[in-house]
Amino acid sequence: MTAQPDQTGGPAGQIIISVDAMGGDAGPSVVVAGISKSAKKNPDIGFILHGPEEQLRKLVSKRRVLDGRVAFRDCPDVVTMEDKPSQVVRSGKQTSMWSALDSVRDGEAHGAVSCGNTGALMALSMMRLRKLPGVNRPAIAILWPSLNPQGFNVMLDVGADVRADAKDLLQFALMGASYARNGLGLVRPRIGLLNVGTEEHKGRAELKEAHALISDFAEQGKFDFVGFVEGSDIPGTKADVVVTDGFTGNVAIKTGEGTANMIRDLLREAFRYSPLSRLASILAITSLQRLKKRVDPRRVNGGVFLGLNGIVVKSHGGADPTGVSAALKLAFTLAKSGFAEKLAARVASTSELDQDAAHAASQAER
Amino acid sequence: MTAQPDQTGGPAGQIIISVDAMGGDAGPSVVVAGISKSAKKNPDIGFILHGPEEQLRKLVSKRRVLDGRVAFRDCPDVVTMEDKPSQVVRSGKQTSMWSALDSVRDGEAHGAVSCGNTGALMALSMMRLRKLPGVNRPAIAILWPSLNPQGFNVMLDVGADVRADAKDLLQFALMGASYARNGLGLVRPRIGLLNVGTEEHKGRAELKEAHALISDFAEQGKFDFVGFVEGSDIPGTKADVVVTDGFTGNVAIKTGEGTANMIRDLLREAFRYSPLSRLASILAITSLQRLKKRVDPRRVNGGVFLGLNGIVVKSHGGADPTGVSAALKLAFTLAKSGFAEKLAARVASTSELDQDAAHAASQAER
Repeated sequence: MTAQPDQTGGPAGQIIISVDAMGGDAGPSVVVAGISKSAKKNPDIGFILHGPEEQLRKLVSKRRVLDGRVAFRDCPDVVTMEDKPSQVVRSGKQTSMWSALDSVRDGEAHGAVSCGNTGALMALSMMRLRKLPGVNRPAIAILWPSLNPQGFNVMLDVGADVRADAKDLLQFALMGASYARNGLGLVRPRIGLLNVGTEEHKGRAELKEAHALISDFAEQGKFDFVGFVEGSDIPGTKADVVVTDGFTGNVAIKTGEGTANMIRDLLREAFRYSPLSRLASILAITSLQRLKKRVDPRRVNGGVFLGLNGIVVKSHGGADPTGVSAALKLAFTLAKSGFAEKLAARVASTSELDQDAAHAASQAER
Repeated sequence: MTAQPDQTGGPAGQIIISVDAMGGDAGPSVVVAGISKSAKKNPDIGFILHGPEEQLRKLVSKRRVLDGRVAFRDCPDVVTMEDKPSQVVRSGKQTSMWSALDSVRDGEAHGAVSCGNTGALMALSMMRLRKLPGVNRPAIAILWPSLNPQGFNVMLDVGADVRADAKDLLQFALMGASYARNGLGLVRPRIGLLNVGTEEHKGRAELKEAHALISDFAEQGKFDFVGFVEGSDIPGTKADVVVTDGFTGNVAIKTGEGTANMIRDLLREAFRYSPLSRLASILAITSLQRLKKRVDPRRVNGGVFLGLNGIVVKSHGGADPTGVSAALKLAFTLAKSGFAEKLAARVASTSELDQDAAHAASQAER
């Protein structure tokens, strides 16, 4: 009934995405609706779907556009949002998440997408795909709506790890620059390092150290380093890539989301206030929808895991079919551009510089 | 020409605010316009103005409402935004900022307001006013627009110090609760501790330790502890007070501000798009102005320094007269409620618990 992509990844020119069908808040029907949406728009994409095969086959058979474009891997278990990463690493072998990553590991898919538990997905990704040589901490990068011409800025790390030292931050800068080149098409991305002020004497010690390291690497890394940036620059025009540790990054994006949601709620309330304002909201509806689309988190759904042997995209757990489809498109775009190989080459080409960095770092420590 | 408030703080019932007239981005004329605005609305407020007396007298003499309500302290020097705190502490004795704090120290004013350099103001405040007994790190608390009935949440620390250990976070919780009681009139504030997830096993080690400490103190501190909260809860309804370290807090509020500004710009653009949307914006103008007022940062202008012997309010450097007036009102409200004394009593009453906390903390460390 369905095509079985071969070891090299399906029909020539087709990009195969391995999809964890389970683990999202709304279950596999939303994931299947998402791949169906994606298949309609993109003739060059194929899927390997991981989860309870019988249930998944039923859902897929209802979508004619998916005929011959989906392979199945039967998995009885599911990683829940409550499962601890350490526990999943020990006993998660039968889960759809584990299986989805193994399709990338085994070379039968070009990238993996999951809506599941972020911590578990990162822990399993590190175990199954392994870190790139020279990478100490992988990072999760997201696209954040911004006033820059490309419409988005890259921000990392937004939650792979709660800590990052100066050398980790340098690697985030390199990986973020590579992602901005392949994901946003920026030839020479501008990198900013997140701090509480833009003066060089401000902030934590590891940030001053990272400032020196990133500055030294800018020329060879083919990016511009704009120095320290502040929280207000994350949606701003000062940098294309904002580098920070996973704790700060996670708090920042959630604060931004919370603020955007509060304004949306208050705006809705304001428009309901009087007959005149209700009329205004009808007249303004296309303008407001254009704005909504511009900052719609579903359009930029997908945190990319950087620093691993392979492409892994984490979709929001509460993603709807549009959101799932956006995450699939992101994995497709990166796979097609050969991002994983380029990133690996970039990190490898800096392994020599890496030695210098370690030396510089040890000198920067007082 | 002007009244000279006596050592106990001017005419009976009058609250005297010591104002650093210099250091704001727009110079002393905006500050004088701000105190004039404040004086018009509030018959019970008086001022001591610090800066170049001749220049200030000229500005004040143009405002009839200020007749007899302003005393002057002549200071030749100004702390600039570029001055390093350490340098100001060493050689800032002739500055208007130093002088403004000394009026509080000497008991001739009930609180101080400055639009100047935050780092310098905190360093000088710690030197001139001294920390409250039992307080290790003072904190800066702000009010953040929220969906809670009181319209605002308290957040601290937003930038006094880039670090905070578990015991500091406990003190922030106590001080934040006290501020919410006196500043927002909440009898039993709900305290949340900022983290990257709400599960107890998540986040940095010092946060797990702080979770245990704050939880133990909730009953005696007369607040409810709602546990870990996320960035999205800062403008949300889950907590009234959000506790975090000064690095994370500063990044969070600036990200929130940046996001709000981006949406404002995009909204403006959306309404300019077509003749129909321009018409809509005219019809919606009162609704939009109501929204703007609700989230207007000028209305909540003022970071309060907590943990010192005396009230210090930091106004935004770019504040306009409305913003300066809001900061003065905040200082007035806190002074009138006897906040400084209540906070000191609160911290003192927990000095015994403090011992327990230190004990618990040492046990929590592995």
